[in-house]
Amino acid sequence: MSDLRPRAAAARAAQRQLGSAAPEARSLALRRLAELLKQNSQAILEANAQDVQAAREAGIEQPLLDRLGLSAAKLDTLRGGLATLAEQVDPLGRRLRATELDDGLALEQVTSPLGLLLIIFESRPDAVIQIGGLALRSGNAVLLKGGSEASRSNRILVDLLRRALRESDLPEDAVQGVQGRAAVAELLAFDDLIDLVIPRGSGALVKSIQQSTRIAVLGHAEGICHLYLADDAEPAMAARLAVDGKCDYPAACNATETLLVHAGFLPALAGVAEALQGRGVTLRGDERAVSALGCEPATEADWNTEYGDLVLSVHVVDSDREAIDFIHAHGSGHTDAICTASTERGEAFLRQVDSASVFHNASTRFADGYRYGLGAEVGISTGRIHARGPVGVDGLLTTRWLLRGSGQGAADYGPGKRDFTWRGL
Amino acid sequence: MSDLRPRAAAARAAQRQLGSAAPEARSLALRRLAELLKQNSQAILEANAQDVQAAREAGIEQPLLDRLGLSAAKLDTLRGGLATLAEQVDPLGRRLRATELDDGLALEQVTSPLGLLLIIFESRPDAVIQIGGLALRSGNAVLLKGGSEASRSNRILVDLLRRALRESDLPEDAVQGVQGRAAVAELLAFDDLIDLVIPRGSGALVKSIQQSTRIAVLGHAEGICHLYLADDAEPAMAARLAVDGKCDYPAACNATETLLVHAGFLPALAGVAEALQGRGVTLRGDERAVSALGCEPATEADWNTEYGDLVLSVHVVDSDREAIDFIHAHGSGHTDAICTASTERGEAFLRQVDSASVFHNASTRFADGYRYGLGAEVGISTGRIHARGPVGVDGLLTTRWLLRGSGQGAADYGPGKRDFTWRGL
Repeated sequence: MSDLRPRAAAARAAQRQLGSAAPEARSLALRRLAELLKQNSQAILEANAQDVQAAREAGIEQPLLDRLGLSAAKLDTLRGGLATLAEQVDPLGRRLRATELDDGLALEQVTSPLGLLLIIFESRPDAVIQIGGLALRSGNAVLLKGGSEASRSNRILVDLLRRALRESDLPEDAVQGVQGRAAVAELLAFDDLIDLVIPRGSGALVKSIQQSTRIAVLGHAEGICHLYLADDAEPAMAARLAVDGKCDYPAACNATETLLVHAGFLPALAGVAEALQGRGVTLRGDERAVSALGCEPATEADWNTEYGDLVLSVHVVDSDREAIDFIHAHGSGHTDAICTASTERGEAFLRQVDSASVFHNASTRFADGYRYGLGAEVGISTGRIHARGPVGVDGLLTTRWLLRGSGQGAADYGPGKRDFTWRGL
Repeated sequence: MSDLRPRAAAARAAQRQLGSAAPEARSLALRRLAELLKQNSQAILEANAQDVQAAREAGIEQPLLDRLGLSAAKLDTLRGGLATLAEQVDPLGRRLRATELDDGLALEQVTSPLGLLLIIFESRPDAVIQIGGLALRSGNAVLLKGGSEASRSNRILVDLLRRALRESDLPEDAVQGVQGRAAVAELLAFDDLIDLVIPRGSGALVKSIQQSTRIAVLGHAEGICHLYLADDAEPAMAARLAVDGKCDYPAACNATETLLVHAGFLPALAGVAEALQGRGVTLRGDERAVSALGCEPATEADWNTEYGDLVLSVHVVDSDREAIDFIHAHGSGHTDAICTASTERGEAFLRQVDSASVFHNASTRFADGYRYGLGAEVGISTGRIHARGPVGVDGLLTTRWLLRGSGQGAADYGPGKRDFTWRGL
């Protein structure tokens, strides 16, 4: 039997101490971690160089090697992020609601740590510090499961996180490094100990985790985002939004995958297509799109595909209603946009489209925690429970209800007895 | 094959129309439902009388019969509730956050319906109208699975709900009645269609549902609530809180099940015990409690038991820390209270106890949506994800992010290009 269950239980217990410590204690630990990164930068970079070397010998591709590699500059960025977190207003104990129930009986709802998080990530060892820092700030414990290709880098970074806690009189067990796929399968069964799983990786990884646990999973398996060009869309704006949505970063989950085109826009569609093709985009259209553009024909599968590449499907509709129904039938509820000169039609689209992010006259690429101004991003959720869309530190919080009384019992209230005042405070 | 999947899919589709309809349309449907209840009261009461008759013949016990029975007065109460909901400020489209990302690029986060709810309830046919009304107000579709003992009552009430929708130009498919246990098992597998399950019934029911679905479940399987008497607790207040917590409604989930007693309070404990015993409470204590009170001895199982009855376990501790650790070890994270004359110790308890509701000098019985002033209560959640503690209509909502732009692309921003302003609106 592995030691995972006692370690998860130890993390859960340590979390209570971490979460109820003074805000300054957590700030101190974040600053200590930044110092430790500086003092140990040589050891970190050496361990990382070994990981990169081994990965290169194993024939791992360059983009992955880039994500795996650390540098003095990357460490500086991480230290800057920790300094920002250390200065940030503490997210815990924020009052969301306050009601006087009666004289001397005051209720408040305050933010609290979620508990124990299981983070599953690939290649980037930076994630240990970014997520560890966020967890520390929000009073959560974390089990960090990184990829085997980064095992040396992750180990030293997890050790520094634990040391920063210990040296700030906080329980080091709140952070635990975990290795290996078998460990994930075992941990996903601990629904009594783990409160949230955050997989950061491919859609296939997210989907397989969602299907093998009863613990809540924050993330998105797919980003099939639509841009709908209404018949009154300004052609230059339509081209700009299509090009940005598809070409700015085609591998991103918020890249546009399907262009919906109102039949009334068809005369202007060639200009949009040229702009896209000029950026190397392959178009796949339905019958009307093919006849207007002479592009490749799309198959049914295209409407449900996240290309993650310079490919865009084009579907022609006869009304806004049809466009919205198409989005609900084929989208992933991630991000969908309309381009229209009409405020009224834009507002109707914003009201009717049931996706995490819905845009009027803006590129789907804006769906991102940094661009939304949320600070550090935990992930993007297409789930509807707990957190939706780009998720910042708020997604790592729950609430508690605190009641301060002076000896009241519930039997004191009711018909012919005392009344509640329910006065907002 | 049953028709449940197409019906759930129809409900999901109808929800989009219901949720994006104007607030007034949903208010109108609520008022129409109140009228229909009045116009059809005779038919409702007749159907209900048949249910009650059949239940009586089947030997069902009186408390259950009481919950099953409807009356003109109960129907009036339901109509009053619907009128209140109809007048209420619409919970949808409420702005939670608004940020200017740049000139002409404005982001807001607004409340939205959760989607499709599966409600599983027992006996009380009132629940059809209460929950149906709440769902309608919040733009959610519902699958209503009632107990077989109320099938005739439930059927006519579900029909009226659907009729109220139809007659208000809203899609009747947003409400669907479901019968039988097999249906529940089938529905719990539709995690692609159903967004939230709300079981209203015994802890065993909640637990069995939690363990057989990947859909989020809102509820609580157990309410093991503690009252901790510190050594400086005022003896009269201690007795009052213990008696109210245990005796006001022993079967409630927020009733006190374990009394934690600081060793320094032992000299005053006899008074508290007498007050409890005077109300018919049986005490079961650990060694020190037995020697102080001469009560029955408790076994290890007592510390993890929700009696739901006039039984209270008593455990003696030597410090606040020990009391808090005991609560985390044996509680269910529902509601825990401290009785102490010290503001400082009260605040430390409020900060450190990780339960949905934490009280200082108030009875655990206050943990309730009505008492908290939340209006209609959806349930009480001991989960940490999405909603925690007493849950009002907010627990039936999620959010969407709406971005209103003027043609911006993400590639317009970055070093040497435009900067985000991130100005709060």
